[in-house]
Amino acid sequence: MTTVEPAIGDAFGDVLRECWDAGAEAGHTFEVIERDDGLLLLADAARYFAGANPWSTHEAAILPLATGRVLDIGCGAGRHLAALGDRCQPEGIDPSPGAVQVCRARGLAARVADIDHLPAGAHGKDAYDTLLLFGNNLGLLGSPEAAPGRLAGLAAVAAPGARILGSTTDPYATTNPLHLRYHQRNREHGRPAGQLRLRVRHQAIATPWFDYWWTSVAELEQVLAGSPWRLSAIERDPGNAGRYAAVLMLR
Amino acid sequence: MTTVEPAIGDAFGDVLRECWDAGAEAGHTFEVIERDDGLLLLADAARYFAGANPWSTHEAAILPLATGRVLDIGCGAGRHLAALGDRCQPEGIDPSPGAVQVCRARGLAARVADIDHLPAGAHGKDAYDTLLLFGNNLGLLGSPEAAPGRLAGLAAVAAPGARILGSTTDPYATTNPLHLRYHQRNREHGRPAGQLRLRVRHQAIATPWFDYWWTSVAELEQVLAGSPWRLSAIERDPGNAGRYAAVLMLR
Repeated sequence: MTTVEPAIGDAFGDVLRECWDAGAEAGHTFEVIERDDGLLLLADAARYFAGANPWSTHEAAILPLATGRVLDIGCGAGRHLAALGDRCQPEGIDPSPGAVQVCRARGLAARVADIDHLPAGAHGKDAYDTLLLFGNNLGLLGSPEAAPGRLAGLAAVAAPGARILGSTTDPYATTNPLHLRYHQRNREHGRPAGQLRLRVRHQAIATPWFDYWWTSVAELEQVLAGSPWRLSAIERDPGNAGRYAAVLMLR
Repeated sequence: MTTVEPAIGDAFGDVLRECWDAGAEAGHTFEVIERDDGLLLLADAARYFAGANPWSTHEAAILPLATGRVLDIGCGAGRHLAALGDRCQPEGIDPSPGAVQVCRARGLAARVADIDHLPAGAHGKDAYDTLLLFGNNLGLLGSPEAAPGRLAGLAAVAAPGARILGSTTDPYATTNPLHLRYHQRNREHGRPAGQLRLRVRHQAIATPWFDYWWTSVAELEQVLAGSPWRLSAIERDPGNAGRYAAVLMLR
Protein backbone atom coordinates (compact mmCIF):
# COMPACT_ATOMS: atom_id res chain seq x y z
CA MET A 1 0.00 0.00 0.00
CA THR A 2 1.17 3.46 -0.81
CA THR A 3 1.70 5.82 2.07
CA VAL A 4 0.48 9.29 1.32
CA GLU A 5 2.08 12.07 3.26
CA PRO A 6 1.55 15.54 1.92
CA ALA A 7 4.16 18.08 2.92
CA ILE A 8 3.23 20.09 6.01
CA GLY A 9 2.66 23.78 5.39
CA ASP A 10 0.19 26.63 5.31
CA ALA A 11 -2.45 24.92 3.20
CA PHE A 12 -5.21 27.11 4.63
CA GLY A 13 -3.31 30.27 3.72
CA ASP A 14 -2.60 28.87 0.27
CA VAL A 15 -6.32 28.31 -0.29
CA LEU A 16 -7.21 31.83 0.81
CA ARG A 17 -4.47 33.43 -1.27
CA GLU A 18 -5.45 31.49 -4.36
CA CYS A 19 -9.08 32.48 -3.86
CA TRP A 20 -8.15 36.12 -3.26
CA ASP A 21 -5.88 36.20 -6.29
CA ALA A 22 -8.80 34.92 -8.37
CA GLY A 23 -11.01 37.78 -7.22
CA ALA A 24 -12.56 35.90 -4.26
CA GLU A 25 -15.29 34.68 -6.58
CA ALA A 26 -17.28 31.53 -5.96
CA GLY A 27 -16.58 28.42 -7.99
CA HIS A 28 -12.84 28.85 -8.32
CA THR A 29 -11.05 27.66 -5.20
CA PHE A 30 -12.17 24.88 -2.92
CA GLU A 31 -10.96 24.17 0.56
CA VAL A 32 -10.49 20.51 1.41
CA ILE A 33 -10.86 19.64 5.07
CA GLU A 34 -9.76 16.13 5.96
CA ARG A 35 -10.98 14.38 9.09
CA ASP A 36 -8.81 11.66 10.59
CA ASP A 37 -11.21 8.92 9.51
CA GLY A 38 -10.37 9.83 5.92
CA LEU A 39 -13.48 11.94 5.34
CA LEU A 40 -12.92 14.78 2.89
CA LEU A 41 -15.13 17.85 3.11
CA LEU A 42 -15.05 20.32 0.25
CA ALA A 43 -16.28 23.88 0.51
CA ASP A 44 -15.92 26.94 -1.65
CA ALA A 45 -13.21 29.18 -0.23
CA ALA A 46 -15.16 32.23 -1.39
CA ARG A 47 -17.27 31.89 1.76
CA TYR A 48 -14.30 33.20 3.73
CA PHE A 49 -14.71 36.49 1.87
CA ALA A 50 -18.49 36.67 2.06
CA GLY A 51 -20.08 39.87 3.30
CA ALA A 52 -22.50 39.96 6.21
CA ASN A 53 -25.56 38.95 4.24
CA PRO A 54 -24.75 35.33 3.47
CA TRP A 55 -23.78 34.69 7.06
CA SER A 56 -25.65 32.31 9.20
CA THR A 57 -28.50 34.15 10.85
CA HIS A 58 -27.50 32.93 14.30
CA GLU A 59 -24.18 34.75 14.02
CA ALA A 60 -25.77 37.83 12.50
CA ALA A 61 -28.20 37.92 15.44
CA ILE A 62 -25.46 38.39 18.03
CA LEU A 63 -22.95 40.37 15.98
CA PRO A 64 -24.38 43.71 17.23
CA LEU A 65 -23.04 42.72 20.67
CA ALA A 66 -19.50 43.14 19.33
CA THR A 67 -18.45 46.42 20.91
CA GLY A 68 -15.32 48.15 22.15
CA ARG A 69 -11.97 46.52 21.41
CA VAL A 70 -12.63 43.41 19.34
CA LEU A 71 -10.28 40.48 18.75
CA ASP A 72 -11.28 38.00 16.06
CA ILE A 73 -9.62 34.67 16.86
CA GLY A 74 -9.03 32.56 13.77
CA CYS A 75 -9.96 35.47 11.52
CA GLY A 76 -9.27 33.66 8.23
CA ALA A 77 -9.61 36.03 5.29
CA GLY A 78 -11.19 38.66 7.54
CA ARG A 79 -14.88 38.51 6.72
CA HIS A 80 -15.84 39.42 10.28
CA LEU A 81 -13.12 42.05 10.53
CA ALA A 82 -14.46 43.65 7.36
CA ALA A 83 -18.04 43.57 8.63
CA LEU A 84 -17.07 45.19 11.94
CA GLY A 85 -14.76 47.77 10.45
CA ASP A 86 -17.53 50.33 10.09
CA ARG A 87 -18.08 50.75 13.78
CA CYS A 88 -14.86 49.72 15.54
CA GLN A 89 -11.27 48.83 14.76
CA PRO A 90 -11.22 45.08 15.18
CA GLU A 91 -8.00 43.10 15.20
CA GLY A 92 -7.64 39.58 13.92
CA ILE A 93 -5.29 36.73 14.63
CA ASP A 94 -4.80 33.56 12.68
CA PRO A 95 -2.06 30.92 12.85
CA SER A 96 -1.92 30.98 9.05
CA PRO A 97 0.60 33.45 7.61
CA GLY A 98 -1.25 33.28 4.29
CA ALA A 99 -4.54 34.20 5.94
CA VAL A 100 -2.92 37.16 7.65
CA GLN A 101 -1.35 38.21 4.35
CA VAL A 102 -4.78 38.18 2.69
CA CYS A 103 -6.33 40.19 5.54
CA ARG A 104 -3.62 42.82 5.21
CA ALA A 105 -4.02 42.94 1.43
CA ARG A 106 -7.66 43.76 2.16
CA GLY A 107 -6.66 46.55 4.53
CA LEU A 108 -7.62 44.64 7.66
CA ALA A 109 -5.58 44.52 10.87
CA ALA A 110 -4.36 40.97 11.48
CA ARG A 111 -1.29 39.18 12.76
CA VAL A 112 -0.03 35.64 13.11
CA ALA A 113 -1.07 34.22 16.48
CA ASP A 114 -3.47 31.65 17.83
CA ILE A 115 -5.72 30.88 20.77
CA ASP A 116 -2.75 29.52 22.75
CA HIS A 117 -0.65 32.58 21.95
CA LEU A 118 -2.97 35.53 22.29
CA PRO A 119 -1.61 39.03 21.67
CA ALA A 120 0.63 40.03 24.56
CA GLY A 121 0.24 43.32 26.35
CA ALA A 122 -3.52 43.23 26.23
CA HIS A 123 -3.82 44.24 29.86
CA GLY A 124 -5.75 46.99 31.56
CA LYS A 125 -6.94 49.53 29.05
CA ASP A 126 -5.58 47.44 26.16
CA ALA A 127 -7.74 44.47 27.10
CA TYR A 128 -10.43 43.29 24.72
CA ASP A 129 -14.12 43.88 25.21
CA THR A 130 -15.17 41.33 22.62
CA LEU A 131 -13.53 38.06 21.65
CA LEU A 132 -14.94 36.65 18.44
CA LEU A 133 -15.01 32.90 17.79
CA PHE A 134 -17.37 32.83 14.83
CA GLY A 135 -17.40 30.38 11.97
CA ASN A 136 -17.64 27.41 14.33
CA ASN A 137 -14.51 28.65 16.11
CA LEU A 138 -15.85 27.79 19.54
CA GLY A 139 -14.45 24.49 18.30
CA LEU A 140 -11.01 25.99 18.97
CA LEU A 141 -11.63 25.25 22.65
CA GLY A 142 -10.12 22.08 21.28
CA SER A 143 -11.01 19.31 23.70
CA PRO A 144 -12.25 18.85 27.27
CA GLU A 145 -8.60 18.83 28.31
CA ALA A 146 -7.54 21.96 26.43
CA ALA A 147 -10.67 24.03 26.96
CA PRO A 148 -10.12 25.19 30.59
CA GLY A 149 -6.66 26.57 29.78
CA ARG A 150 -7.94 28.31 26.69
CA LEU A 151 -10.92 29.81 28.49
CA ALA A 152 -8.52 31.12 31.17
CA GLY A 153 -6.23 32.51 28.46
CA LEU A 154 -9.14 34.34 26.87
CA ALA A 155 -10.08 35.80 30.25
CA ALA A 156 -6.50 37.01 30.72
CA VAL A 157 -6.78 39.35 27.72
CA ALA A 158 -10.39 40.36 28.42
CA ALA A 159 -11.58 43.64 29.93
CA PRO A 160 -14.13 43.65 32.75
CA GLY A 161 -17.58 42.95 31.30
CA ALA A 162 -16.08 41.36 28.19
CA ARG A 163 -18.01 38.94 26.00
CA ILE A 164 -17.07 35.99 23.87
CA LEU A 165 -19.26 35.81 20.79
CA GLY A 166 -18.89 32.38 19.28
CA SER A 167 -20.57 29.78 17.18
CA THR A 168 -20.38 26.04 16.89
CA THR A 169 -22.41 22.99 15.95
CA ASP A 170 -24.16 20.51 18.21
CA PRO A 171 -22.66 17.20 17.04
CA TYR A 172 -25.68 15.25 18.23
CA ALA A 173 -27.98 16.96 15.73
CA THR A 174 -26.78 14.82 12.83
CA THR A 175 -28.27 11.62 11.46
CA ASN A 176 -25.45 11.13 8.93
CA PRO A 177 -24.14 7.56 9.44
CA LEU A 178 -20.58 8.73 8.67
CA HIS A 179 -20.69 11.18 11.53
CA LEU A 180 -22.47 8.75 13.85
CA ARG A 181 -19.73 6.19 13.25
CA TYR A 182 -17.13 8.84 13.99
CA HIS A 183 -18.92 9.70 17.24
CA GLN A 184 -18.96 6.04 18.17
CA ARG A 185 -15.25 5.73 17.51
CA ASN A 186 -14.66 8.77 19.71
CA ARG A 187 -16.70 7.27 22.55
CA GLU A 188 -14.77 4.03 22.30
CA HIS A 189 -11.60 6.05 22.85
CA GLY A 190 -13.08 7.94 25.80
CA ARG A 191 -13.55 11.15 23.85
CA PRO A 192 -16.72 13.24 23.49
CA ALA A 193 -18.69 12.56 20.33
CA GLY A 194 -17.92 15.96 18.80
CA GLN A 195 -14.16 15.69 19.14
CA LEU A 196 -12.78 16.33 15.66
CA ARG A 197 -9.27 15.91 14.38
CA LEU A 198 -8.86 17.86 11.18
CA ARG A 199 -6.39 19.29 8.74
CA VAL A 200 -6.70 21.44 5.65
CA ARG A 201 -5.22 20.16 2.40
CA HIS A 202 -4.45 22.12 -0.73
CA GLN A 203 -2.48 20.91 -3.72
CA ALA A 204 0.34 18.83 -2.18
CA ILE A 205 0.37 20.69 1.18
CA ALA A 206 -1.44 19.91 4.41
CA THR A 207 -1.64 21.82 7.65
CA PRO A 208 -0.68 19.96 10.79
CA TRP A 209 -3.56 18.04 12.34
CA PHE A 210 -5.50 20.06 14.88
CA ASP A 211 -8.22 19.32 17.42
CA TYR A 212 -11.58 20.97 17.06
CA TRP A 213 -14.37 20.25 19.49
CA TRP A 214 -18.02 20.58 18.59
CA THR A 215 -20.15 20.77 21.72
CA SER A 216 -23.80 20.56 22.55
CA VAL A 217 -25.14 23.44 24.65
CA ALA A 218 -25.05 21.14 27.68
CA GLU A 219 -21.39 20.26 27.04
CA LEU A 220 -20.55 23.92 26.57
CA GLU A 221 -22.23 24.79 29.89
CA GLN A 222 -20.33 21.97 31.55
CA VAL A 223 -16.93 23.17 30.35
CA LEU A 224 -17.81 26.75 31.31
CA ALA A 225 -18.61 25.72 34.89
CA GLY A 226 -15.61 26.71 36.96
CA SER A 227 -14.20 28.84 34.13
CA PRO A 228 -14.06 32.64 34.12
CA TRP A 229 -16.97 32.68 31.64
CA ARG A 230 -20.69 32.02 31.92
CA LEU A 231 -23.21 31.28 29.22
CA SER A 232 -25.39 34.33 28.72
CA ALA A 233 -27.40 33.55 25.58
CA ILE A 234 -27.86 31.01 22.83
CA GLU A 235 -29.07 31.79 19.34
CA ARG A 236 -29.94 28.81 17.15
CA ASP A 237 -29.73 28.68 13.38
CA PRO A 238 -33.33 28.25 12.24
CA GLY A 239 -32.10 26.56 9.07
CA ASN A 240 -29.87 24.00 10.76
CA ALA A 241 -30.92 22.49 14.06
CA GLY A 242 -27.35 21.80 15.15
CA ARG A 243 -25.77 25.17 14.59
CA TYR A 244 -25.88 27.82 17.23
CA ALA A 245 -24.21 30.98 18.40
CA ALA A 246 -23.37 31.60 22.02
CA VAL A 247 -22.74 34.72 24.07
CA LEU A 248 -20.38 34.14 27.00
CA MET A 249 -19.93 36.81 29.68
CA LEU A 250 -16.82 37.29 31.79
CA ARG A 251 -17.82 36.54 35.38
CA MET B 1 0.84 11.55 13.80
CA THR B 2 -2.59 10.42 12.79
CA THR B 3 -2.84 7.75 10.14
CA VAL B 4 -5.60 8.46 7.69
CA GLU B 5 -7.03 5.49 5.92
CA PRO B 6 -10.30 6.05 4.14
CA ALA B 7 -12.39 2.95 3.58
CA ILE B 8 -11.86 1.35 0.18
CA GLY B 9 -14.85 1.46 -2.11
CA ASP B 10 -16.36 2.83 -5.29
CA ALA B 11 -15.54 6.48 -4.67
CA PHE B 12 -15.61 7.24 -8.41
CA GLY B 13 -19.07 5.75 -8.77
CA ASP B 14 -20.22 7.63 -5.68
CA VAL B 15 -19.07 10.91 -7.23
CA LEU B 16 -20.85 10.20 -10.50
CA ARG B 17 -24.06 9.11 -8.80
CA GLU B 18 -24.13 12.16 -6.57
CA CYS B 19 -23.55 14.41 -9.57
CA TRP B 20 -26.23 12.60 -11.59
CA ASP B 21 -28.71 12.76 -8.71
CA ALA B 22 -28.11 16.51 -8.56
CA GLY B 23 -28.99 16.91 -12.23
CA ALA B 24 -25.41 16.62 -13.52
CA GLU B 25 -25.07 20.37 -13.13
CA ALA B 26 -21.75 22.12 -12.69
CA GLY B 27 -20.76 23.46 -9.30
CA HIS B 28 -22.35 20.75 -7.20
CA THR B 29 -20.12 17.67 -7.04
CA PHE B 30 -16.37 17.64 -7.16
CA GLU B 31 -14.13 14.72 -7.83
CA VAL B 32 -10.98 14.53 -5.72
CA ILE B 33 -8.07 12.72 -7.31
CA GLU B 34 -5.20 12.00 -4.96
CA ARG B 35 -1.69 11.33 -6.22
CA ASP B 36 0.63 9.29 -4.05
CA ASP B 37 2.77 12.32 -3.23
CA GLY B 38 -0.27 13.74 -1.41
CA LEU B 39 -1.33 16.05 -4.25
CA LEU B 40 -5.08 16.59 -4.38
CA LEU B 41 -6.65 17.53 -7.69
CA LEU B 42 -10.21 18.77 -7.68
CA ALA B 43 -12.42 18.84 -10.75
CA ASP B 44 -16.11 19.31 -11.30
CA ALA B 45 -17.76 15.92 -11.84
CA ALA B 46 -20.21 17.51 -14.27
CA ARG B 47 -17.52 17.22 -16.95
CA TYR B 48 -18.21 13.49 -17.04
CA PHE B 49 -21.67 14.31 -18.33
CA ALA B 50 -20.63 17.02 -20.79
CA GLY B 51 -21.91 16.83 -24.33
CA ALA B 52 -19.64 16.84 -27.35
CA ASN B 53 -19.12 20.59 -27.48
CA PRO B 54 -17.05 21.16 -24.37
CA TRP B 55 -14.73 18.31 -25.27
CA SER B 56 -11.12 18.85 -26.01
CA THR B 57 -10.75 19.65 -29.68
CA HIS B 58 -8.10 16.96 -30.13
CA GLU B 59 -10.59 14.27 -29.16
CA ALA B 60 -13.38 15.81 -31.21
CA ALA B 61 -11.04 15.80 -34.23
CA ILE B 62 -10.65 12.02 -34.26
CA LEU B 63 -14.08 11.01 -32.95
CA PRO B 64 -15.48 10.64 -36.50
CA LEU B 65 -13.09 7.69 -36.91
CA ALA B 66 -15.19 5.75 -34.39
CA THR B 67 -17.06 3.31 -36.61
CA GLY B 68 -18.51 -0.18 -36.49
CA ARG B 69 -18.67 -1.89 -33.12
CA VAL B 70 -17.32 0.49 -30.51
CA LEU B 71 -16.11 -0.35 -27.00
CA ASP B 72 -15.51 2.58 -24.64
CA ILE B 73 -12.99 1.49 -22.03
CA GLY B 74 -13.35 3.37 -18.77
CA CYS B 75 -16.59 4.91 -19.94
CA GLY B 76 -17.34 6.80 -16.73
CA ALA B 77 -20.77 8.41 -16.84
CA GLY B 78 -21.01 7.67 -20.56
CA ARG B 79 -20.33 11.03 -22.21
CA HIS B 80 -18.68 9.36 -25.21
CA LEU B 81 -21.31 6.62 -25.37
CA ALA B 82 -23.99 9.30 -25.48
CA ALA B 83 -22.19 11.24 -28.21
CA LEU B 84 -21.75 8.13 -30.37
CA GLY B 85 -25.25 6.81 -29.82
CA ASP B 86 -26.63 8.61 -32.86
CA ARG B 87 -24.65 6.64 -35.37
CA CYS B 88 -23.74 3.31 -33.75
CA GLN B 89 -24.53 1.26 -30.66
CA PRO B 90 -21.44 1.69 -28.55
CA GLU B 91 -20.82 -0.38 -25.44
CA GLY B 92 -19.00 0.84 -22.39
CA ILE B 93 -17.07 -0.82 -19.61
CA ASP B 94 -15.94 0.65 -16.34
CA PRO B 95 -14.60 -1.01 -13.20
CA SER B 96 -16.90 1.25 -11.15
CA PRO B 97 -20.34 -0.25 -10.45
CA GLY B 98 -21.63 3.24 -9.69
CA ALA B 99 -20.43 4.54 -13.06
CA VAL B 100 -22.14 1.65 -14.83
CA GLN B 101 -25.30 2.31 -12.84
CA VAL B 102 -25.29 5.95 -13.96
CA CYS B 103 -24.71 4.95 -17.61
CA ARG B 104 -27.68 2.59 -17.45
CA ALA B 105 -29.87 5.21 -15.81
CA ARG B 106 -29.03 7.36 -18.84
CA GLY B 107 -30.07 4.57 -21.21
CA LEU B 108 -26.51 3.73 -22.23
CA ALA B 109 -25.12 0.20 -22.63
CA ALA B 110 -22.42 -0.40 -20.04
CA ARG B 111 -21.18 -3.16 -17.79
CA VAL B 112 -18.62 -3.63 -15.04
CA ALA B 113 -15.28 -4.68 -16.53
CA ASP B 114 -11.87 -3.19 -17.05
CA ILE B 115 -8.93 -3.17 -19.43
CA ASP B 116 -7.58 -6.37 -17.87
CA HIS B 117 -10.97 -8.08 -18.11
CA LEU B 118 -12.36 -7.11 -21.48
CA PRO B 119 -15.77 -8.43 -22.51
CA ALA B 120 -15.49 -12.13 -23.30
CA GLY B 121 -16.89 -13.59 -26.49
CA ALA B 122 -15.84 -10.64 -28.58
CA HIS B 123 -14.39 -12.88 -31.29
CA GLY B 124 -14.91 -13.04 -35.01
CA LYS B 125 -17.97 -11.09 -36.02
CA ASP B 126 -18.43 -9.85 -32.43
CA ALA B 127 -14.99 -8.24 -32.33
CA TYR B 128 -14.71 -4.50 -31.92
CA ASP B 129 -13.84 -2.12 -34.75
CA THR B 130 -13.11 0.77 -32.42
CA LEU B 131 -11.66 0.77 -28.93
CA LEU B 132 -12.07 4.11 -27.20
CA LEU B 133 -9.56 5.31 -24.58
CA PHE B 134 -10.59 8.96 -24.39
CA GLY B 135 -10.37 11.25 -21.40
CA ASN B 136 -6.65 10.54 -20.94
CA ASN B 137 -7.45 6.83 -20.78
CA LEU B 138 -4.41 5.86 -22.83
CA GLY B 139 -3.01 6.24 -19.33
CA LEU B 140 -4.74 2.93 -18.58
CA LEU B 141 -1.88 1.25 -20.40
CA GLY B 142 -0.68 1.59 -16.84
CA SER B 143 3.08 1.29 -16.93
CA PRO B 144 5.87 0.10 -19.23
CA GLU B 145 5.46 -3.33 -17.62
CA ALA B 146 1.67 -3.55 -17.91
CA ALA B 147 1.29 -1.92 -21.34
CA PRO B 148 2.37 -4.83 -23.61
CA GLY B 149 -0.12 -7.22 -22.02
CA ARG B 150 -2.89 -4.67 -22.22
CA LEU B 151 -2.15 -3.83 -25.85
CA ALA B 152 -2.26 -7.58 -26.64
CA GLY B 153 -5.53 -7.89 -24.74
CA LEU B 154 -7.03 -5.06 -26.76
CA ALA B 155 -5.91 -6.74 -29.97
CA ALA B 156 -7.56 -9.97 -28.85
CA VAL B 157 -11.01 -8.35 -28.92
CA ALA B 158 -10.34 -6.26 -32.03
CA ALA B 159 -11.63 -6.95 -35.55
CA PRO B 160 -9.28 -6.76 -38.54
CA GLY B 161 -8.62 -3.12 -39.37
CA ALA B 162 -9.64 -2.02 -35.85
CA ARG B 163 -8.53 1.28 -34.37
CA ILE B 164 -7.79 2.47 -30.89
CA LEU B 165 -8.84 6.10 -30.43
CA GLY B 166 -7.19 7.42 -27.34
CA SER B 167 -5.97 10.51 -25.61
CA THR B 168 -3.35 11.29 -23.04
CA THR B 169 -1.01 14.01 -21.85
CA ASP B 170 2.69 14.43 -22.52
CA PRO B 171 4.08 14.67 -18.99
CA TYR B 172 7.13 16.61 -20.18
CA ALA B 173 5.02 19.57 -21.29
CA THR B 174 4.60 20.89 -17.73
CA THR B 175 6.66 23.50 -15.92
CA ASN B 176 4.76 23.03 -12.64
CA PRO B 177 7.40 22.42 -9.94
CA LEU B 178 5.08 19.98 -8.15
CA HIS B 179 4.91 17.80 -11.23
CA LEU B 180 8.61 18.19 -12.00
CA ARG B 181 9.44 16.98 -8.48
CA TYR B 182 7.12 14.03 -8.97
CA HIS B 183 8.86 13.19 -12.25
CA GLN B 184 12.20 13.36 -10.50
CA ARG B 185 11.01 11.01 -7.78
CA ASN B 186 9.81 8.60 -10.44
CA ARG B 187 13.17 8.68 -12.20
CA GLU B 188 14.96 8.01 -8.94
CA HIS B 189 12.85 4.87 -8.62
CA GLY B 190 13.54 3.77 -12.19
CA ARG B 191 10.10 4.73 -13.45
CA PRO B 192 9.19 6.92 -16.40
CA ALA B 193 8.43 10.53 -15.50
CA GLY B 194 4.75 10.23 -16.34
CA GLN B 195 4.08 7.21 -14.14
CA LEU B 196 1.17 8.23 -11.93
CA ARG B 197 -0.24 6.43 -8.93
CA LEU B 198 -3.71 7.73 -8.23
CA ARG B 199 -6.91 7.11 -6.38
CA VAL B 200 -10.27 8.84 -6.30
CA ARG B 201 -11.61 9.99 -2.94
CA HIS B 202 -15.15 10.98 -2.07
CA GLN B 203 -16.53 11.58 1.39
CA ALA B 204 -14.86 8.88 3.51
CA ILE B 205 -14.33 6.41 0.64
CA ALA B 206 -11.31 5.92 -1.61
CA THR B 207 -10.82 3.69 -4.62
CA PRO B 208 -7.84 1.37 -4.52
CA TRP B 209 -4.68 2.98 -5.83
CA PHE B 210 -4.18 2.46 -9.55
CA ASP B 211 -1.36 3.08 -11.99
CA TYR B 212 -1.88 5.52 -14.80
CA TRP B 213 0.88 6.27 -17.28
CA TRP B 214 1.13 9.53 -19.16
CA THR B 215 3.41 9.16 -22.17
CA SER B 216 5.07 11.46 -24.60
CA VAL B 217 4.48 10.59 -28.26
CA ALA B 218 7.98 9.09 -28.36
CA GLU B 219 7.24 6.89 -25.34
CA LEU B 220 3.94 5.82 -26.86
CA GLU B 221 5.69 4.85 -30.11
CA GLN B 222 8.27 2.93 -28.12
CA VAL B 223 5.68 0.88 -26.25
CA LEU B 224 3.78 0.23 -29.48
CA ALA B 225 6.86 -1.20 -31.17
CA GLY B 226 6.48 -4.95 -31.09
CA SER B 227 2.81 -4.66 -30.12
CA PRO B 228 -0.14 -5.51 -32.38
CA TRP B 229 -0.77 -1.77 -32.82
CA ARG B 230 0.94 1.00 -34.76
CA LEU B 231 0.65 4.74 -34.37
CA SER B 232 -1.34 6.11 -37.28
CA ALA B 233 -2.02 9.74 -36.36
CA ILE B 234 -1.56 12.30 -33.62
CA GLU B 235 -3.86 15.24 -32.98
CA ARG B 236 -2.62 17.84 -30.52
CA ASP B 237 -4.77 20.06 -28.35
CA PRO B 238 -4.10 23.60 -29.62
CA GLY B 239 -5.02 24.96 -26.19
CA ASN B 240 -2.70 22.72 -24.18
CA ALA B 241 0.66 21.73 -25.57
CA GLY B 242 0.83 18.49 -23.61
CA ARG B 243 -2.52 16.98 -24.45
CA TYR B 244 -2.95 14.90 -27.55
CA ALA B 245 -5.15 12.29 -29.13
CA ALA B 246 -3.73 9.27 -30.92
CA VAL B 247 -5.10 6.91 -33.54
CA LEU B 248 -3.62 3.41 -33.32
CA MET B 249 -4.22 0.87 -36.10
CA LEU B 250 -4.24 -2.89 -35.67
CA ARG B 251 -1.29 -4.21 -37.65
